[in-house]
Amino acid sequence: MLDDTFHVFDTTLRDGGQREGISYSATDKIAVARLLDDVGVGFIEGGWPGALPTDTEFFARAAAGELALKNAQLVAFGATRKAGVRVQDDKQVAALLAAQTPVVCLVAKSDVRHVTDALRTTYEENLAMVRDTVAYLVGEGRRVFLDCEHFFDGYAHDRDYGVRVLASAFEAGADVGVLCDTNGGMLPMGVGRVVSEVIERTGFRVGMHAQDDTACAVANTLAAVEAGATHVQGTANGYGERAGNADLFAVIGGLVTKMNRQVVPEECLPELVRVSHAIAEIANIAPDTHQPYVGASAFAHKAGLHASAIKVSPELYNHMEPAVVGNDMRILVTEMAGRASIELKAKELGIDLTDEPEAVGRVVAKVKELEAGGSSFEAADASFELLVRSELEGENGPTFFRLESYRVLVEQHDGGEAISEATVKLAVDGERVIATAEGNGPVSALDRALRQALTTFYPSLADVELADYKVRILDGRFGTDAVTRVLIDTTDHKGEWTTVGVHGNVIEASWRALIDALNYGLRRAGAATLV
Amino acid sequence: MLDDTFHVFDTTLRDGGQREGISYSATDKIAVARLLDDVGVGFIEGGWPGALPTDTEFFARAAAGELALKNAQLVAFGATRKAGVRVQDDKQVAALLAAQTPVVCLVAKSDVRHVTDALRTTYEENLAMVRDTVAYLVGEGRRVFLDCEHFFDGYAHDRDYGVRVLASAFEAGADVGVLCDTNGGMLPMGVGRVVSEVIERTGFRVGMHAQDDTACAVANTLAAVEAGATHVQGTANGYGERAGNADLFAVIGGLVTKMNRQVVPEECLPELVRVSHAIAEIANIAPDTHQPYVGASAFAHKAGLHASAIKVSPELYNHMEPAVVGNDMRILVTEMAGRASIELKAKELGIDLTDEPEAVGRVVAKVKELEAGGSSFEAADASFELLVRSELEGENGPTFFRLESYRVLVEQHDGGEAISEATVKLAVDGERVIATAEGNGPVSALDRALRQALTTFYPSLADVELADYKVRILDGRFGTDAVTRVLIDTTDHKGEWTTVGVHGNVIEASWRALIDALNYGLRRAGAATLV
Repeated sequence: MLDDTFHVFDTTLRDGGQREGISYSATDKIAVARLLDDVGVGFIEGGWPGALPTDTEFFARAAAGELALKNAQLVAFGATRKAGVRVQDDKQVAALLAAQTPVVCLVAKSDVRHVTDALRTTYEENLAMVRDTVAYLVGEGRRVFLDCEHFFDGYAHDRDYGVRVLASAFEAGADVGVLCDTNGGMLPMGVGRVVSEVIERTGFRVGMHAQDDTACAVANTLAAVEAGATHVQGTANGYGERAGNADLFAVIGGLVTKMNRQVVPEECLPELVRVSHAIAEIANIAPDTHQPYVGASAFAHKAGLHASAIKVSPELYNHMEPAVVGNDMRILVTEMAGRASIELKAKELGIDLTDEPEAVGRVVAKVKELEAGGSSFEAADASFELLVRSELEGENGPTFFRLESYRVLVEQHDGGEAISEATVKLAVDGERVIATAEGNGPVSALDRALRQALTTFYPSLADVELADYKVRILDGRFGTDAVTRVLIDTTDHKGEWTTVGVHGNVIEASWRALIDALNYGLRRAGAATLV
Repeated sequence: MLDDTFHVFDTTLRDGGQREGISYSATDKIAVARLLDDVGVGFIEGGWPGALPTDTEFFARAAAGELALKNAQLVAFGATRKAGVRVQDDKQVAALLAAQTPVVCLVAKSDVRHVTDALRTTYEENLAMVRDTVAYLVGEGRRVFLDCEHFFDGYAHDRDYGVRVLASAFEAGADVGVLCDTNGGMLPMGVGRVVSEVIERTGFRVGMHAQDDTACAVANTLAAVEAGATHVQGTANGYGERAGNADLFAVIGGLVTKMNRQVVPEECLPELVRVSHAIAEIANIAPDTHQPYVGASAFAHKAGLHASAIKVSPELYNHMEPAVVGNDMRILVTEMAGRASIELKAKELGIDLTDEPEAVGRVVAKVKELEAGGSSFEAADASFELLVRSELEGENGPTFFRLESYRVLVEQHDGGEAISEATVKLAVDGERVIATAEGNGPVSALDRALRQALTTFYPSLADVELADYKVRILDGRFGTDAVTRVLIDTTDHKGEWTTVGVHGNVIEASWRALIDALNYGLRRAGAATLV
């Protein structure tokens, strides 16, 4: 647990939920909150109790003890009392208290134009709403932070009103005034200037809430900290409305590794990658492979020219040590592949090629030939590993089965459901095996038929299944030499591997990737060869 | 065409191609260059001639007149001469000249550690390599820019060597020294400081090349401009190695709308959205809906609380007018935006819906339903037009044929070629027609069987053929509800149209897109219905 001098405040479950397509259940919210606690944020804003039933349920279950947090304090979000209503009589404020969180974050208008156009009240009443609500909640034992909505736009229009809003809150006992770039139009230079000025004019504790509409949310947050802010708000993976919020993982990464501020407990930083991916899974959003710090490609290098130098001095090519945030460096195999990058890649896969110069030469030639034909080993580590091992092992390599033929049939009658059926014929363990299966498409039918034929001989295949399937048509124009590249992700529920297949015919390309996937799975499981 | 005082330098085709998964053909590169020219960038770095066959082909085709640019100048990228080699004898430098571009961008080491560890030469020889190569290219009539690789890391280590590299280039006639944050570890405050210092110390014209490893690439670029840089490098949609490059569209958006610098011709700015999406299509990367300025959600608001205020004063809720960059505000949940855009799109296709409010309602409902199921009409104008016309025409619309069934068979024996065969059964002009055809894959077999069955009745189909075929798997994870979206481009050699098909089964999805494609072709040819 860190002291109170710097706040990392997460709003994934409140503002982050505004992202198009996200809708968390209360159970999802509990799972996400636990993950956020694992990365060591100081505050987790769980939602708006009273306004949304899911959020009310979440806070009730948390209060009942279902959510035990190691690092974070739970925060309820809400609005100030309504205009013309006594704070004690405001139902929304009552719901905030009922949430039983140690901290409440209140949102208030700080741009005069929003006071008149959206809130439709007077400047003075808005200040009274802030003052009354903060004082009431503080009196009830809550710690109160104030989100000043549209602060920067308001400040550009009238540099005094937002400061009066802040003063009303602080006089009533608020602890932090959060300057919100609600429309997301700011750049870091402007943010730094306003934050410095406000701190200089008021002496108040100031926080920053940035949106990414100019692609500067993370930079704006870091600029605010450099200017004196000691509270930062953000969301996991930057999820949020429009272009999203500041990505809290990049904010933490920047603060810790670039600005030398230990804003989360030291042991939490290597959790970033795992937590980022797990939250993406719960939100049902494909992880962004190119996300800074935590993406699968964040430390991936297309080898080519500098492979030998990367091998000697990786620190010259990475902006930081990837393991610090739980990530890894990856060397991609590409058409520019040279001997050095092949050796490096093989080493990463646990194969030492130092004393195998001839095998390296054969692998380089093979990779070049296959990539010229449209294959790509960049993502297909398992196909690459099979290629390297088969060059090393030659005749001595394992053969788990021999293919005789396959047939795929897709039929549709009178507008009914299309039926996909596949038959495969194989030789395994001296026997001829024929299997037929249906699937929800031609590739899943082939996969099922293959596994049906093989599982009797190789029981470990029962745990293996397809996890993802990607298709890409290369060279576009039909009729010419268009080629289809298929990538298949396969899992045995302990790990995942990717294989590639390329052919003019999408079924044949898929078949090739499938065969690699199963061969790799059998090697992985240490299956004995039966052919 | 703008003057030379500020450079927007695009490197989508060179550095952007380093993104994992991207591999452009020379034809793709020409299409991307045309699109970049439409947004008004000043320079397009097309690749590294000599090093990559695709790039050599691209420059040859451009030099042969295939690429006529309105706004941009073409740039060839390459390295300085090799250590210990006369510049006149360096093949890589010769390939740069052979590319026949008005501008050459040379990369040079500017961090002493890279000079010794990666280049394995002396500090002085590296300076000589820069000086000789720049002087030689300038002597041959080229304008030369210098990319100073790892400049910021190098500057932190030794603040003089990078400046000596710059001086060597400028003395030899270079025009711009680009400070590259190659590892992407900088923050805007540091970038601003270094850029100011370098300009103050040298008086040279300085550019900025930022990578997004700290999520600050756009901010770093804008900070460099504020500090005096007058040349910015970036890529379409931020494509690039690891976390990517500075997103050039956000850089342009920030410079024009936030910093009041007219860095592209005024008429080009509204092209940003179109160009961003079209380049994503060519790169075969799903457009990022949350991308700043150009994403489909960049100006989308979840209605709810402030809906009426947003309607009255949209400028209070958007950081800028979306139309400036060719985008739209969207209010989610309400039907308002849907109706307006459907009417607009129909008008674009020559269908006036002004007096058809009910048809518009039905189309909106249908589009929503289909898009929720994974369809997308953004690229598939022909499928959209068929949908609108069928809602307008109802029972009176033309039916050219009725489908009874199809069957597709793919077979492979003993490692031989896979054979694809399709049979379709149709009713046309009161007759039952059965046709069987082979193809180089299941979809081309289906297409041939269909056209074989129909051409006797509709001779105009003899001119119609598939031009392109794209597949995307939506929702990723197998076993769940993964859905396949197929886009088919069809041509009658007078024009081209695009149709979409969506289904869990790739064959059925392709079939749906094919049927739309032929129906649209028959309408287009004004065929009489024979059913």
